[in-house]
Amino acid sequence: MDTRPIGVFDSGIGGVTVFKEIRKLLPNENIIYYADTARVPYGPRPTEEIIRFSLDAVDFLLKQQIKLLVIACNTVSAVAFDAILAHTDIPVIGVIEPGTRSVVSRSGIHKLGLIATEATVRSGEYQKRLTEEEPNLQLITKACPMLVSLIEEGWGNTEISKLVIQKYMEDMKGADLDGLILACTHFPVIRAQIEEYLGPDVQIIDPAEETAKELERVLQERKLLHPAETEASIRFYVSDKPEKFKSIVEKILDPRDIRQVSLT
Amino acid sequence: MDTRPIGVFDSGIGGVTVFKEIRKLLPNENIIYYADTARVPYGPRPTEEIIRFSLDAVDFLLKQQIKLLVIACNTVSAVAFDAILAHTDIPVIGVIEPGTRSVVSRSGIHKLGLIATEATVRSGEYQKRLTEEEPNLQLITKACPMLVSLIEEGWGNTEISKLVIQKYMEDMKGADLDGLILACTHFPVIRAQIEEYLGPDVQIIDPAEETAKELERVLQERKLLHPAETEASIRFYVSDKPEKFKSIVEKILDPRDIRQVSLT
Repeated sequence: MDTRPIGVFDSGIGGVTVFKEIRKLLPNENIIYYADTARVPYGPRPTEEIIRFSLDAVDFLLKQQIKLLVIACNTVSAVAFDAILAHTDIPVIGVIEPGTRSVVSRSGIHKLGLIATEATVRSGEYQKRLTEEEPNLQLITKACPMLVSLIEEGWGNTEISKLVIQKYMEDMKGADLDGLILACTHFPVIRAQIEEYLGPDVQIIDPAEETAKELERVLQERKLLHPAETEASIRFYVSDKPEKFKSIVEKILDPRDIRQVSLT
Repeated sequence: MDTRPIGVFDSGIGGVTVFKEIRKLLPNENIIYYADTARVPYGPRPTEEIIRFSLDAVDFLLKQQIKLLVIACNTVSAVAFDAILAHTDIPVIGVIEPGTRSVVSRSGIHKLGLIATEATVRSGEYQKRLTEEEPNLQLITKACPMLVSLIEEGWGNTEISKLVIQKYMEDMKGADLDGLILACTHFPVIRAQIEEYLGPDVQIIDPAEETAKELERVLQERKLLHPAETEASIRFYVSDKPEKFKSIVEKILDPRDIRQVSLT
């Protein structure tokens, strides 16, 4: 039993889709979410820069005495996971291993689309892991950086995001996919628009749910679960524009969860 | 008389709108254009980072033996001009002073809209200079970061950029403006769409033309004009994705000018 908070890190608002699943599955856990909104998006940045920024963020969370770190960002999980592991002794959970598991646990996925940031696609992490697990899987990848920018701007689920989805995913629509993995934590925000565009035959796979399950498993295994005698404390820290963050995130989360949004 | 090239610097493709005016006015000058496409956009970045990246770019151009530097980027001109001046002995021309002159040289501008990046708006440079010259000018500013990202992606003059213009400029449309200054060198790319949205009563002011005139004046004054006996040599350097840069820029420039696009 451990009452210390879980640290959740994303470059911006994307990670709240993972946060939401964690809250659903583990409502008693205290959580500190850090969003590096001054430097979002990470996706188009060079590897070294992503690693440097990620370690800054991890240092901030470690100072808050977290018991476990969830990297709620595919870009950071793809590019900086090993550097973060080497940087701390607490358990670290990324989204790519759970994301891979979300795919292989399903049946009927022979041809899979993967949408992500430039850095995630370039890293080849998903491609490597998925091919190891499912050597016959056909994979079509597409970097969709503008979708991240749009969602950060609060323009998800508008006519603009609809047109951008069409622009990026035109080839995928004609490719007879069985499934599409949302390999960027921002994309579940516009899941309904993506589903509408691709149609009902394409299973949409969101790694967030599997990530929350992995978190529960690790907390149990390491005896780190919260004893659950008090209401969970939820705090958000952002490196820039707390009001903007709050106004976008309140469309996604329970309002009670975003009472505390502070500038670092 | 001086045959050395002029250096032109922008974070990305925006500066080619200034480059184009320079080519028109000074067709004999050799030009080296540097675009920091690996780190574009600069607009949402913190000041210190913009200065650091700008000095890297200037160092690159100085190594190419340029005789004069044109900062074809409002963000860099607004935020890093003094740092660049202190960094080199060659003449440096930014876009903000010419941009201010483009406004005050016109009659009938009492209420002016200004669209730019976040860093340019935040710097207050235009606001300060315009108010010094025209104390009664009413100024309405708006940061439009997504327009920069769209144009860098090659999505200018599409249905998407049209919707984004509407989204950003809705308030300006109702504000009875006399003029609008395109205080980001990317925006002339979508000038026709902006004009169409705001209507014929709003004068669109593009600082690029005035910047080219300022360049001509400085070259004359310092006796740095090219003697014009041979065809001008035009070279582009980018820090990432030369093919993408070329494919977007070829919609804007004379194809003969973009034969040489190299990775730094």
